[in-house]
Amino acid sequence: MTFFDVLFGRPLATSDERAEQIGIAAGIPIFGLDALTSAAYGPEAAMTLLIPMGLAGVDHIVPVISAILILLVIVYFSYRQTIEAYPSGGGSYTVATENLGEFPGLLAAAALMIDYILTAAVGISAGVTALTSAVPSLQRHTLAICLVILVILAIVNLRGVKDTGAAFILPTFFFVGTLLTLVFVGAYKAYVSGWHPVPVVAPPPPAVATMKYLSLWLLLKTFSSGCAAMTGVEAVSNGVMAFKEPRAKNAQRTLTVIVATLIVLLFGIAWLSKTYGVTAMDPEAHQYQSVLSILTTTIFGRGWFYYLTMGSVLMALSLSANTAFADFPRLARAISLHDYLPHVFTLRGRRLLYTHGVYALTGFTAVILILFGGVTDRLIPLYAIGAFLAFTLSQAGMVVHWLKMEDHPGRMWHMFVNGFGAVATGITLLVVLVAKFMAGAWVTALLVPVLIGIMMGIKRHYTRVKREMKDMTPLSLANLQEPLVVIPMARWDRIGEKALRFGLVLSKELKVVHVHSDDEPVGLEEDWEEKVLAPIRKEGIPEPELVTIPSNYRFIINPLMDYILELEASNPGRKVTVLLPELVVRHWWENALHNQRVQLLKLLLLLKGNQRIVVVNIPWYL
Amino acid sequence: MTFFDVLFGRPLATSDERAEQIGIAAGIPIFGLDALTSAAYGPEAAMTLLIPMGLAGVDHIVPVISAILILLVIVYFSYRQTIEAYPSGGGSYTVATENLGEFPGLLAAAALMIDYILTAAVGISAGVTALTSAVPSLQRHTLAICLVILVILAIVNLRGVKDTGAAFILPTFFFVGTLLTLVFVGAYKAYVSGWHPVPVVAPPPPAVATMKYLSLWLLLKTFSSGCAAMTGVEAVSNGVMAFKEPRAKNAQRTLTVIVATLIVLLFGIAWLSKTYGVTAMDPEAHQYQSVLSILTTTIFGRGWFYYLTMGSVLMALSLSANTAFADFPRLARAISLHDYLPHVFTLRGRRLLYTHGVYALTGFTAVILILFGGVTDRLIPLYAIGAFLAFTLSQAGMVVHWLKMEDHPGRMWHMFVNGFGAVATGITLLVVLVAKFMAGAWVTALLVPVLIGIMMGIKRHYTRVKREMKDMTPLSLANLQEPLVVIPMARWDRIGEKALRFGLVLSKELKVVHVHSDDEPVGLEEDWEEKVLAPIRKEGIPEPELVTIPSNYRFIINPLMDYILELEASNPGRKVTVLLPELVVRHWWENALHNQRVQLLKLLLLLKGNQRIVVVNIPWYL
Repeated sequence: MTFFDVLFGRPLATSDERAEQIGIAAGIPIFGLDALTSAAYGPEAAMTLLIPMGLAGVDHIVPVISAILILLVIVYFSYRQTIEAYPSGGGSYTVATENLGEFPGLLAAAALMIDYILTAAVGISAGVTALTSAVPSLQRHTLAICLVILVILAIVNLRGVKDTGAAFILPTFFFVGTLLTLVFVGAYKAYVSGWHPVPVVAPPPPAVATMKYLSLWLLLKTFSSGCAAMTGVEAVSNGVMAFKEPRAKNAQRTLTVIVATLIVLLFGIAWLSKTYGVTAMDPEAHQYQSVLSILTTTIFGRGWFYYLTMGSVLMALSLSANTAFADFPRLARAISLHDYLPHVFTLRGRRLLYTHGVYALTGFTAVILILFGGVTDRLIPLYAIGAFLAFTLSQAGMVVHWLKMEDHPGRMWHMFVNGFGAVATGITLLVVLVAKFMAGAWVTALLVPVLIGIMMGIKRHYTRVKREMKDMTPLSLANLQEPLVVIPMARWDRIGEKALRFGLVLSKELKVVHVHSDDEPVGLEEDWEEKVLAPIRKEGIPEPELVTIPSNYRFIINPLMDYILELEASNPGRKVTVLLPELVVRHWWENALHNQRVQLLKLLLLLKGNQRIVVVNIPWYL
Repeated sequence: MTFFDVLFGRPLATSDERAEQIGIAAGIPIFGLDALTSAAYGPEAAMTLLIPMGLAGVDHIVPVISAILILLVIVYFSYRQTIEAYPSGGGSYTVATENLGEFPGLLAAAALMIDYILTAAVGISAGVTALTSAVPSLQRHTLAICLVILVILAIVNLRGVKDTGAAFILPTFFFVGTLLTLVFVGAYKAYVSGWHPVPVVAPPPPAVATMKYLSLWLLLKTFSSGCAAMTGVEAVSNGVMAFKEPRAKNAQRTLTVIVATLIVLLFGIAWLSKTYGVTAMDPEAHQYQSVLSILTTTIFGRGWFYYLTMGSVLMALSLSANTAFADFPRLARAISLHDYLPHVFTLRGRRLLYTHGVYALTGFTAVILILFGGVTDRLIPLYAIGAFLAFTLSQAGMVVHWLKMEDHPGRMWHMFVNGFGAVATGITLLVVLVAKFMAGAWVTALLVPVLIGIMMGIKRHYTRVKREMKDMTPLSLANLQEPLVVIPMARWDRIGEKALRFGLVLSKELKVVHVHSDDEPVGLEEDWEEKVLAPIRKEGIPEPELVTIPSNYRFIINPLMDYILELEASNPGRKVTVLLPELVVRHWWENALHNQRVQLLKLLLLLKGNQRIVVVNIPWYL
């Protein structure tokens, strides 16, 4: 067992795949943490916009959240169907590509990739920000802590799906457990008090109302802000392949558990806020507390349960980045299978997952964390856009899907649900875009076309390569001719002899090229007659030709390149094989003691050469 | 004419060498600036130690400088003889190696290399420090200005010896001219006033005397500090090859002019100080002025001549680094010719000089300037040691030289002079070492053995390579056998076909190796029979063998390497030739879209392979 094996786990054989597949219990932390943690900030995001209405605002929160929950249920059914229809995974990207075409697919791909990278960055930095506001002395290490968490997440994920699930199951359990306890105890206390519960600690007084009526625009903004609670719901549909058989069923059940829990939490928090008269606080306000913090204090007081709840929220938030780690590599693979991303994303590493996707996500997330110094609040508006663009495209894709399934029972109903969902998420997308455009959403609006452009460029490249490389014809044996062999030689030594011996086997036409700089006193001529030609004549082998090129400017490479290219041009149809003797040293530093001309020549032959020039490395080991 | 040509000059043919050689006029600025500028700080270095004696101290300065001048004359004659005896240059290193043996030679080499790098760093930063004390607002750009001057010096020197001489002739002329004017006008004024000159501006009063008698230790320290005035004298002897014919004569004349001028300046400044009653000031003192500044003020007042003199001193000091640029590359070449440094130092660049020496010096100097932030005062004690170690070894070498020249007239006298010089410079070296050991001389004492160790390691490497590579025997034609050809192939495509066609020409024994990962649905077998074997059978050519290696862990490289190494081991005496098809893309970024396995395999074959494994690159251009 090496240190490497301890850190990343021993390699898994491809046949171990089944053992690596996960059930529902592991599926929830892996694919659900992002969605579930939105219960911690979704209701608050909506309630913040209602602050100007004072205590009256809290009356609107239950209807707004209910509307969001209806949308969530629609999206849930849509993804349930997606999982069944596309059991090999791919989510929005696959659905959009297969039903709407190439371009909508790329739109979904770009949106989701941006979304996942932002999820990772925002998740980690949200957790760290919560930690540093509790322990202010850590504040100046914010970025370093972010990067350490990022690396830990990357390592845990590189150990494979199963280990990741095992690592995150406890924090998820704590998060869901404490919040459910909050909701149910709160409801029970309200019930026994005849729906007029007495707070243990009174919540801070609501802001003075400056607005009397809820305008449509404010309603829309409140709704779309609250929709942040829906991000992360698409994660399971991307990762169907990770589940045990029956795959689709297990994935659907996982999604059901996640969405059901989320509904209870979201509705519970909204209803408790209304019942206990808790309003959101201005984040800029003195002694700001989150809605969740106020609610817990109101129901339980500041006891051990309060700290347990807050701790579990903090933990879950910073681990919610893990959903990005679970899905990004699968998404990148799906895109790469369509040739829109480099093919390395399809390779499975030692632990059977798409290692390069993890690397790429880690790299991009690190770049964003470093650019923003680990404080990513301003990134939040950017990242709902990706999710809602994906939702909209996915549902629209499902509408087309049902259109094609002409004999499916109840397809009109399905189409209606998905169509309604598409319109609802589409409107939400527009509202978010308009409301947050200046706050940063324009970055996403700019990045998406750039990403699409890059992906299309990659596709073009692969298409060209495939077209050029594909060979459905049998091997052609016409024109099998010995190559013209060129051996650059500075002096007669053992490595030169080795090259010449190899050249004599290769071909009857050998050109030994000696570039003679004015600087050097003697050339190769003397040794040539005596040491080379004499034994060759005795054996009656065709004689190699010695070509001496004078170099007035002490250049070696240029005259050689000129000679080789000229030889190639004047012998159309012949292959030119250049034998390059290369000294292999024992230690890397010994390379500094030898001229690196051979490496330069190899590079130049590759860059300036063509199909008919072949380079042979003759190694000489010291 | 490219920008490159404008900056560095057009390439010079090797036959242009004669036109690049210099005469005395160019030789003085190139090789003499370091020695000449020591007139600006040498006397002051000695006088500073006499401060505690007050005005009485100044009486001792003329005898001390006279003693130094005697030593300088001895060293001068020694180097004059060295130039004659070793007209191909090399100075102390060559003299020590040829007469005292390998180890003393390396000692001189290490000492001189350190000395030159420090000369460059100290020269540049001395000039910049003088500039920034005149214009304090530039102080925070000290390092940047140092590096800019370093780069300018490097570029000027890369243009070749002739252009360098032309660039530095004017500053040298100004420096020597103003100082000689100072000396002669000062002497004339003293003469006309009957040796009791009246200062134009009275010099600052001398310090209160705290010492009455000059102790032997103080005398020795004063002497050894003043010896800083002798550094740079060895430069000409290293660069004899740069001079026009008659080389030795021209070099000797250049050395004569430099040393004669230096003697006049040193003696003049010492004598004027005594005559005008000028003592050195404590550098820490308020309104500190250098001895040169006080003398000029005393004799000329603060007029235009004062500023002209100070400006020319500042300019010459910062350009004195150039002597290092002129000599380091030549020294490195001389050492490298003995295999103690990488051979690149023997290559002449486009302007006929040893380009890599200039690069190395620039690099090391930059490192030192950056490490010390451009303030290198503390390096001054380090750098006289190198010079005096070189002097001592050179003179000791000359003693042995004369010992061998049994029939040379006057060899006893020569031996006596050089022997006396060796003892004197040796004692000075010891005094400097003891006096400055804690102040930093220990760094040099530590660096010298490290450098010697590195040089001996390099020599060992080259000796081994030469022993292994040297082939005085004629070409052996025994055992010329076709190689075993291995072609790794993932699928049947055009690049695979190209490789196979090349392989069929190379050998009758072909192994096409297909590593089949469990991940991939189909292997190569299907195409093999139909597309490859069928046409080969029709032609009656020996059939290549398809070797399919299953890979349970999705590794591709490892199974391939194992197969190749095993094949090599089980076929002793046969060459194994591995054909690696390689895709050559048009743009560098396209490389990211292709698996870099071929590159990795090439590297591994080079690292783990042996003499009998040959790699052939089959390029495929898109």
